[in-house]
Amino acid sequence: MEPTTIPKTEKVKVTFLPKETTTRVPAGTTLFHAAAWTGQPIESTCGGRGTCGKCRVQVIEGSTPITPADLQHLSQEDLTTGWRLSCQAEVRDEMVVQVPRLLTTPKTAMFGVGRQVLLDPNVHKVRLKLEEPTLHDQRSDFQRLKDALLEEGFAMSADLAVLRSLPTALRGAEFDVTAVLSGETLVAVEPGDTTGECYGIAFDLGTTTIVGTLMDLNNGETRAVISTLNAQAIHGGDVLSRISHTMGKKEGLEELQHLAAFTINGIIERVTAESGVPASRLYEITVAGNLTMIHLLMGIDPEPISVTPFAAAAAHGIDLKAREIGISIHPEGRVYLFPAIGAYVGGDIVAGLLATAVPRGDKLRLFVDVGTNGEIALGHEQRTVATAAPAGPAFEGAEISCGMRATTGAIEGVQITDDTVVLQTIDDAPPVGLCGSGLVDVVAQLYRRGLMDPTGRMRSADEVRGLVPDALASRLVNVEGVRAFVLATADETGGRPVVFTQKDVRQLQFAKGSIASGIKVLMNVMGVKPEDLHEVLLAGAFGSYIHPDAARIIGLVPAVALDRIRAVGNAAGEGAKIGLLSYREREAAEAMPARVEYIELSGREDFNDIFMGVLGFPPLDSLP
Amino acid sequence: MEPTTIPKTEKVKVTFLPKETTTRVPAGTTLFHAAAWTGQPIESTCGGRGTCGKCRVQVIEGSTPITPADLQHLSQEDLTTGWRLSCQAEVRDEMVVQVPRLLTTPKTAMFGVGRQVLLDPNVHKVRLKLEEPTLHDQRSDFQRLKDALLEEGFAMSADLAVLRSLPTALRGAEFDVTAVLSGETLVAVEPGDTTGECYGIAFDLGTTTIVGTLMDLNNGETRAVISTLNAQAIHGGDVLSRISHTMGKKEGLEELQHLAAFTINGIIERVTAESGVPASRLYEITVAGNLTMIHLLMGIDPEPISVTPFAAAAAHGIDLKAREIGISIHPEGRVYLFPAIGAYVGGDIVAGLLATAVPRGDKLRLFVDVGTNGEIALGHEQRTVATAAPAGPAFEGAEISCGMRATTGAIEGVQITDDTVVLQTIDDAPPVGLCGSGLVDVVAQLYRRGLMDPTGRMRSADEVRGLVPDALASRLVNVEGVRAFVLATADETGGRPVVFTQKDVRQLQFAKGSIASGIKVLMNVMGVKPEDLHEVLLAGAFGSYIHPDAARIIGLVPAVALDRIRAVGNAAGEGAKIGLLSYREREAAEAMPARVEYIELSGREDFNDIFMGVLGFPPLDSLP
Repeated sequence: MEPTTIPKTEKVKVTFLPKETTTRVPAGTTLFHAAAWTGQPIESTCGGRGTCGKCRVQVIEGSTPITPADLQHLSQEDLTTGWRLSCQAEVRDEMVVQVPRLLTTPKTAMFGVGRQVLLDPNVHKVRLKLEEPTLHDQRSDFQRLKDALLEEGFAMSADLAVLRSLPTALRGAEFDVTAVLSGETLVAVEPGDTTGECYGIAFDLGTTTIVGTLMDLNNGETRAVISTLNAQAIHGGDVLSRISHTMGKKEGLEELQHLAAFTINGIIERVTAESGVPASRLYEITVAGNLTMIHLLMGIDPEPISVTPFAAAAAHGIDLKAREIGISIHPEGRVYLFPAIGAYVGGDIVAGLLATAVPRGDKLRLFVDVGTNGEIALGHEQRTVATAAPAGPAFEGAEISCGMRATTGAIEGVQITDDTVVLQTIDDAPPVGLCGSGLVDVVAQLYRRGLMDPTGRMRSADEVRGLVPDALASRLVNVEGVRAFVLATADETGGRPVVFTQKDVRQLQFAKGSIASGIKVLMNVMGVKPEDLHEVLLAGAFGSYIHPDAARIIGLVPAVALDRIRAVGNAAGEGAKIGLLSYREREAAEAMPARVEYIELSGREDFNDIFMGVLGFPPLDSLP
Repeated sequence: MEPTTIPKTEKVKVTFLPKETTTRVPAGTTLFHAAAWTGQPIESTCGGRGTCGKCRVQVIEGSTPITPADLQHLSQEDLTTGWRLSCQAEVRDEMVVQVPRLLTTPKTAMFGVGRQVLLDPNVHKVRLKLEEPTLHDQRSDFQRLKDALLEEGFAMSADLAVLRSLPTALRGAEFDVTAVLSGETLVAVEPGDTTGECYGIAFDLGTTTIVGTLMDLNNGETRAVISTLNAQAIHGGDVLSRISHTMGKKEGLEELQHLAAFTINGIIERVTAESGVPASRLYEITVAGNLTMIHLLMGIDPEPISVTPFAAAAAHGIDLKAREIGISIHPEGRVYLFPAIGAYVGGDIVAGLLATAVPRGDKLRLFVDVGTNGEIALGHEQRTVATAAPAGPAFEGAEISCGMRATTGAIEGVQITDDTVVLQTIDDAPPVGLCGSGLVDVVAQLYRRGLMDPTGRMRSADEVRGLVPDALASRLVNVEGVRAFVLATADETGGRPVVFTQKDVRQLQFAKGSIASGIKVLMNVMGVKPEDLHEVLLAGAFGSYIHPDAARIIGLVPAVALDRIRAVGNAAGEGAKIGLLSYREREAAEAMPARVEYIELSGREDFNDIFMGVLGFPPLDSLP
């Protein structure tokens, strides 16, 4: 979202000993965050706020000034021998620092694409046996808590609602309490020791589907997962129709806000019921969603997202009270919304990039999330670029004559054998129509079997007669003057035949052409070729179902070896979980918009040429 | 409120050149705040947040490390020649710094006790002609505003309500707007140039009376003042009965919260009507009140304030949304509540000390606010101590046989001449009873005329016969076995006589003895004598009406020369105004609880002896 006229921040190299892990970070990044970015663990309880004093590192090469927090936590001797608190030390020039061995083995868990994530949630429960007030110690309840928390290494602030609860909370528990912090915000003071019960939910807030995962923040375990349709769908299936709804009527925005909260609350009810965890022990939720979904959830007018130049109201990471947006967890619980990189490269993609670690890997990788919009990122720790390509609804089965959503009877796999067509349908039901992955399959198969030429023109039965068995050639028909291919005859379906037309091919070509163009633009910007790609990651539901070979045959993804194409599942959901379980990872997500360059496709002069160049299909012998 | 077991922070001397003003501040204070404390102006637009880069000073002696903000705003040459941003530079050891001449003459105004206050409100209006978004500059509305404000030297954060307003606010005004900041919090984005209209209200939130002063934050002018009774009074006249009300019934606290907000809103309605300033242009209010009043206004249970060891829920300075406590200014407007030094030395006294600058003066001064509680502070910039002495309601006319509040017919002045009694009454009405200042006067006069001995025993008519004229002696009577003095006969009042009894003298003695003990304790702690006192400041309504000579004759204040006793009026209200007009002064108030030592009288072993020692009256010839 940065203007392209502002020069990109210079990146500086940092090396962490003894492991010699290196990274390049924008000047001004703290050593602590640079380390988190590389996955290098550094001791800390305060999450990098300068209060716990545990994140000390020794600067071996380069320098960083002494900060006030250093003076508070380090001795004169420490300072002269280069020790600094890594959370306060900003990187200005190339540096080498020594990280002390961790005092305790940190808890970690595997998430996303083989990501070893340090368990270090933003929510902390701290057991406190406070000294009771006396005439010699008349500190206020607030100050007493604050002092005790600071001694444990936590900074604290409290707003009115929590201040109101203090006198009763402390005295009712005889000053033996558990303080619950979300970051520096005091969420609750609970009687006795409740440190064992600390939960949150990670949400993947999709336009179509919302998934919530209730997690135990003490050990990173998943306690319940619920997936449900976004109730906003009654006002349209895609982001643009949702935005139209807010423009069409005065209460439209409020309606959609309520429907988002309603769906989320429904999930909360079900995950709490399933896990037996009460809602009052849910202190935080993280939400990864596209920018329109996030605007609607916050009740912010999304209209500017839908019209050029696509400048949203807010695109930064946002921390707010759950009840401000009508979400029913702990009354003072918090919501964290992932930041966006661009109007159409939202928090879901930031979360996906967190889960796949594309912008911090040392290998060049391509990340593609195919949907109504194709979101694409390409890069490694040196540089990552991202864009969004409007694919239209073809991949969701819309605007395809025989298209349908991925439900019972949808053809999700197509194989054209020597003389017949083998269809794979959802629930093994009789075929009704084509969903996205079936659509890609049928086009790939038609092309591979020579039933379609490289420009996407279907051949006629006459043209292929003798080249393919008659049983196959006879499926090439003409429906009202338009060429078509019979996927399933009326006999085969036991009802209406399923016929795929030339027009459908064109729809698919436009959709895949748009995404392929986006990929091509990014590859041009980076100056790389398909053979430079270490991996192509297909994210999202569609990415999980699509056949990698078909994707590369139709040219949706670059021509790379098949084993380099990898479905990564619900990367956004994984990223939301990572952000819930690790404050440092969340900070890495916060840094993403500044680290990942957004490339706007609209108005690019080279776009039309590139688009025309990728509309057709790549030569079959070009695939490695 | 700090525990007395924690050693006091070491104070460090700082000298500002060229004026050579010096101050002693706790180690860790920034140079900027140290300067503000001495009244030394330093250029700044961001109020000391490290964003504007204007507050540079040159360190001549001593040193302070380079901070990240320094690196951002100062050149390498500046840094090596000792230039630092004063708002980031913490004082650790004795320092001498050079302050550059101000580029513009700062606006100042006189407030409090001859305080020249720099106009530097926490509320800022910044006119911004924003660049409109383009495909090359797709920054979000939030980021666009934030960047533009940072360029003007202001940091900014925005919560959900303001984020929601951005798309319409910016586009409706074609990106030509005025941003309103309260500190770093974005309060509003208004179309066009509204910088000329920027207002706030300073409140003195008294147990009995609430005073609101609407001020123009652009020039410090008062636009309207309204004083009204606190509607909470229907639930009791003093803080303890108010607290009882919250304990007696479940909704008690809520009732009192609503009554406080109701009274304040009533004042807001009247000052806006009187001044013609709409409530939507009121962005901030400051409130100086005792800790109980502040708790009730916030809706926080005040009960712990009323029982030993008097540990309140919160005593720090608090910034919150006006609408959180039901106060009707701009919907996103803010409230600042002054911090307290102790449970009974509240934000009203902090504001009073701000207005009188007792803790930053170079001369030793005594500050006394007489009421149901006597609040006392003693000191100068090297050290200031404070305490609260429970005086009981005698000074408000309660528990005095002929006592009354200071309303029509109350005797506020008494002079016993050679042979008669001259009474001064409110509204010159026939005398009805005695209010506080009259009470002090009558006792002082009885003592001076020898009608009462130094222990407070009234003499009988027989004892004084021959020593004073008969007309006077005959006023010494005996009512139901108790000695009394006839202030006004039935003839003189035209109704019931006003008679002052021996019991009344005792009540007065207990009340003044309590306050005098508090003063004595503080003087002992500081190791000073009456002749060391440069001034005795009498604050509050009572302090304004009391006759200074009478106060020293009865021993309510130490025996100092008459011209050293000074009424300072509504010091709390003045402090509230200063805090509204100057963020730096507000920061000085924030520093007060750490700077002023609170001395708890309860449980002090020497208290009873001291109390007994000051119950009587000082020898008349001892007064200088």
